[in-house]
Amino acid sequence: MRDVVVIGAGMTKFGELWDKSIKDIFVEASLKAIKDSGVDHIDSIYVGAMSSGLFVGQEHLGAILADYLGMNPVPATRVESACASGGAAFRQAYLEVASGASEIVLAGGVEKMNDGADVTEVLATAADQEYEVYQGITFPGLYAMIAKAHMHQYGTTREQLAAVAVKNHRNGSKNKNAQFGFEVTPEQVMKSTMVSDPLRLLDCSPVTDGGAAVIVASMDVAKKLNKNFVRVIASAQASDTIALHSRESFTTLNSVVKAAEKAYRMAGIKPTDLNLCEVHDCFTIAEIVVSEDLGFFEKGKGGEAVLNGLTSIESGKIPINTSGGLKSKGHPVGATGIAQIIELFEQLNGKAGGRQVKNARIGMAQNMGGSGASSVIHILEVK
Amino acid sequence: MRDVVVIGAGMTKFGELWDKSIKDIFVEASLKAIKDSGVDHIDSIYVGAMSSGLFVGQEHLGAILADYLGMNPVPATRVESACASGGAAFRQAYLEVASGASEIVLAGGVEKMNDGADVTEVLATAADQEYEVYQGITFPGLYAMIAKAHMHQYGTTREQLAAVAVKNHRNGSKNKNAQFGFEVTPEQVMKSTMVSDPLRLLDCSPVTDGGAAVIVASMDVAKKLNKNFVRVIASAQASDTIALHSRESFTTLNSVVKAAEKAYRMAGIKPTDLNLCEVHDCFTIAEIVVSEDLGFFEKGKGGEAVLNGLTSIESGKIPINTSGGLKSKGHPVGATGIAQIIELFEQLNGKAGGRQVKNARIGMAQNMGGSGASSVIHILEVK
Repeated sequence: MRDVVVIGAGMTKFGELWDKSIKDIFVEASLKAIKDSGVDHIDSIYVGAMSSGLFVGQEHLGAILADYLGMNPVPATRVESACASGGAAFRQAYLEVASGASEIVLAGGVEKMNDGADVTEVLATAADQEYEVYQGITFPGLYAMIAKAHMHQYGTTREQLAAVAVKNHRNGSKNKNAQFGFEVTPEQVMKSTMVSDPLRLLDCSPVTDGGAAVIVASMDVAKKLNKNFVRVIASAQASDTIALHSRESFTTLNSVVKAAEKAYRMAGIKPTDLNLCEVHDCFTIAEIVVSEDLGFFEKGKGGEAVLNGLTSIESGKIPINTSGGLKSKGHPVGATGIAQIIELFEQLNGKAGGRQVKNARIGMAQNMGGSGASSVIHILEVK
Repeated sequence: MRDVVVIGAGMTKFGELWDKSIKDIFVEASLKAIKDSGVDHIDSIYVGAMSSGLFVGQEHLGAILADYLGMNPVPATRVESACASGGAAFRQAYLEVASGASEIVLAGGVEKMNDGADVTEVLATAADQEYEVYQGITFPGLYAMIAKAHMHQYGTTREQLAAVAVKNHRNGSKNKNAQFGFEVTPEQVMKSTMVSDPLRLLDCSPVTDGGAAVIVASMDVAKKLNKNFVRVIASAQASDTIALHSRESFTTLNSVVKAAEKAYRMAGIKPTDLNLCEVHDCFTIAEIVVSEDLGFFEKGKGGEAVLNGLTSIESGKIPINTSGGLKSKGHPVGATGIAQIIELFEQLNGKAGGRQVKNARIGMAQNMGGSGASSVIHILEVK
């Protein structure tokens, strides 16, 4: 397989973008990424989007976005793995360049969630319709069950959950593209409206419109353009049972464990070699569970770790979600996996401003669909 | 890029499968393909599906299908390019094996269209919502405009359109998996209910439930298994403007022209080297236009060619849609592109029974999304 690199990135502000259509959002992010990379053409386009059909009544998203980008006849394909759609789109771009079929591929992600659809109902299509959704469960409910089990099994506390939100909002307050770029206190989190016990409003990622795009290329292209680039040293994906009730454990996400094993093996590194990690914190409990399943902390110790500051930018141990994460930056589901890659691209190039991790050289992005039925992991390195 | 081959295939009967869910359908097709190939594991899964969210309220189709196949933690990703979703899924499987990332990939497609959704409305999400659908147009209307323009510009006749349906039903009558596996007469086609002038009921592909899957592998795997295999000698994809009104011409599908150019170049062959072709006959006019755009006939002569029998199995010129095509076999949109590959796999292995093309050695599959905004073309060869 050929070396594959990221040579440019662009994203919209995340938020409620009432004056922008899904096409506007994708085009804005893509044009920024193209400009940033300096390429004069694109060989192929992938678009990660979870449910443009249900959110805005538009399928066939690859073709329509290539059209509005003015890029016909460039091939364009939509990729969907629920909230891991962005990570999956990046993986397809990686595979296409690695195969030698293309030199320059645009990997984008987009979601327009604020457009009148019942968002909770649309998101629930990422769970098992027959065995979960028809019984009335929603995603806050599924993750609340994970949280309850984790608290029961390992003594994880309400304060530890809140610490995830506090840290991510602190990081997000330094990210101009964040939807909720302000700090919150532990008290604010713990007194916010109850959503699904024990998860409160400030434990949940928000409903977001947004787009993100990166330019993936061969090493030859990167060297010719003489650009700052970041190498993809691992791409791994794994599946788990879609329904929570089918799993052996509620407190371990097997797709994360399996994808991480593959990714570490492919990159030839250990968890301690990573300088930062973007994880899929759709709910505060998700960050705690994933930080354990990625091997950063012993099982059951993820809550303690975040409360003790081991995942903060300043700690030096393993800064998690320096971008603000889904929690503060926002979670336009199809765009999230690409936005994670963008954070790594900026951090590894030393361009993350007030949230820069010192001497960041290797970073990981972990993007997840449903209650962890899909997990896509990438490791990027700068030399 | 490594050599990539198809080593097994399986599909469900196409039709109104009221007693089967989308999961049942995909699992049935996949298990048949796995059994046919003789493999003992799968490295990765792609699922082509256009709109499972709107048809059956289920997104995250990769993960749920991997789960019901009992295949966790194998990575599974859904690919969507409207009615070209199956072809696009096959292309991703091809790229993954070509890259060296995987040895054995399952490429499947599925759609459950008969489940209560307003099918015409769901299919319309493959067109431009803002500029086409909101004005009241549907796919029969879009293809009717193409037909009118083709008739006006080239003198294509009602009889020629009917000849497509007559030929494809004749072929489909020899395909046990066809939804409408019976013959029709030109008179029946021309007297069937008007849908959108000049297109009548028997000019339109039906609403279909169905699944199809193939096993894509490296040459090493194929040789080890000592299986009949068919080599993928070209994979190409192209986009066009999504809205018909944005195109220079209504009577040429530019995505087909561009993808065909690439495919012929990659395979190193000319149109006359092909022994058969499966084309995307969602409407009779589509087969005529595509047969011209693929270079089989001079522009404007596609109607005459089918009426004169040049595309029949017996003619020897270029048999088109030996499977019965979308018209007779049925069109479960996400599965169609894979079912086309299956027809080539059977024909090139000499296993197409009563519809066998003599000495078939090279075949093409052309799968299309929307009114031609996406086109995916594959060329397969047996040695």
